[in-house]
Amino acid sequence: MGAEDASAVRRRPGRRPGSADTRGQILTAARQIFAEKGFDRATVRGIARTAGVDPALVHHYFTSKAGMFVAVMDLPLNPEEVVPVLIGGPREEVGERIVRFVLTLTADAEARQPLLAMIRTAMTNDQVAAMVREFLTEELLDRAARGLGVPRIRMEAAFSQMFGLLVMRHVLRLDPLASAGVEELVALFAPTIQRYLDED
Amino acid sequence: MGAEDASAVRRRPGRRPGSADTRGQILTAARQIFAEKGFDRATVRGIARTAGVDPALVHHYFTSKAGMFVAVMDLPLNPEEVVPVLIGGPREEVGERIVRFVLTLTADAEARQPLLAMIRTAMTNDQVAAMVREFLTEELLDRAARGLGVPRIRMEAAFSQMFGLLVMRHVLRLDPLASAGVEELVALFAPTIQRYLDED
Repeated sequence: MGAEDASAVRRRPGRRPGSADTRGQILTAARQIFAEKGFDRATVRGIARTAGVDPALVHHYFTSKAGMFVAVMDLPLNPEEVVPVLIGGPREEVGERIVRFVLTLTADAEARQPLLAMIRTAMTNDQVAAMVREFLTEELLDRAARGLGVPRIRMEAAFSQMFGLLVMRHVLRLDPLASAGVEELVALFAPTIQRYLDED
Repeated sequence: MGAEDASAVRRRPGRRPGSADTRGQILTAARQIFAEKGFDRATVRGIARTAGVDPALVHHYFTSKAGMFVAVMDLPLNPEEVVPVLIGGPREEVGERIVRFVLTLTADAEARQPLLAMIRTAMTNDQVAAMVREFLTEELLDRAARGLGVPRIRMEAAFSQMFGLLVMRHVLRLDPLASAGVEELVALFAPTIQRYLDED
């Protein structure tokens, strides 16, 4: 972009000064702070300070630290919103709900690609792995294990099966797993998830 | 290494001419042919031709195409040898045998590292993914599914669970899954594998 174009953008009529950039500034700061400190030790206050904005603005744009992580990673969902839906409803169908939800979500390439990108990066970069581990533990696994009243190792077992299924279906592309329909896979995998998440 | 050292190596007394290099030449050729053609379309004959040796020598050093792949990838085991042991024995304990074997094998960092390296490369490189998929399908999944008389999708389901467990335990390192003892994990995961591999 030439100097004149940049200047034109800055002078765009009717634009509230700095507003579009504020979200971007916060995201840039969040990316930096998550990379430096990981997810656990990052704070909304610290990210706001790095971005040079008021913490209230961070809450305005992203609601929470998890919301910022979701935006930084371009994830198709926020566990804060999805977990209550998945663990609500009849307890004896929680396995089926989870398998059907994950398979339906990831059938869409636009939702799947950022998830696979995060998985690939976490598997080859220890710093990203630590950040993803902290995010998953706090926002997904702890939240769901508490909500269902199961030990966290059982929630991790369920997660490990869904993770393995997604990698076999969409990365390694093992057939017939890769080309099977959602309902066939629900029948095959839901009892596994249900058993892990059943009360003792 | 200086010219004199190299020359000393070449003149090492008592060494059968070319013998140590032959194995290395075959491995180099195998690496090249697997990369170019994948596992399925590679042949012992083609690799021997590229290495400039007789196919009988390839069989002498590596037994089979699978043996060459295992050597190229530095894998800690050959499915040709392990599958019969795992699917033999009481059918109602096959899940337990598989989970205990995989966890015990991968508890050893020297056995685990090449497996994890292969997984990481396959997840970020489509050509390697195809090669690994072909090797796994032919040498591990087909062989085990045939041996047990189960549909291959059920063997892939079992594989997806063991894969997910290994990644969570040794790459993402989710606790308590990462620090749990082998027997606790056998109790948690063996029923899953057993159900996938039970006859209908």
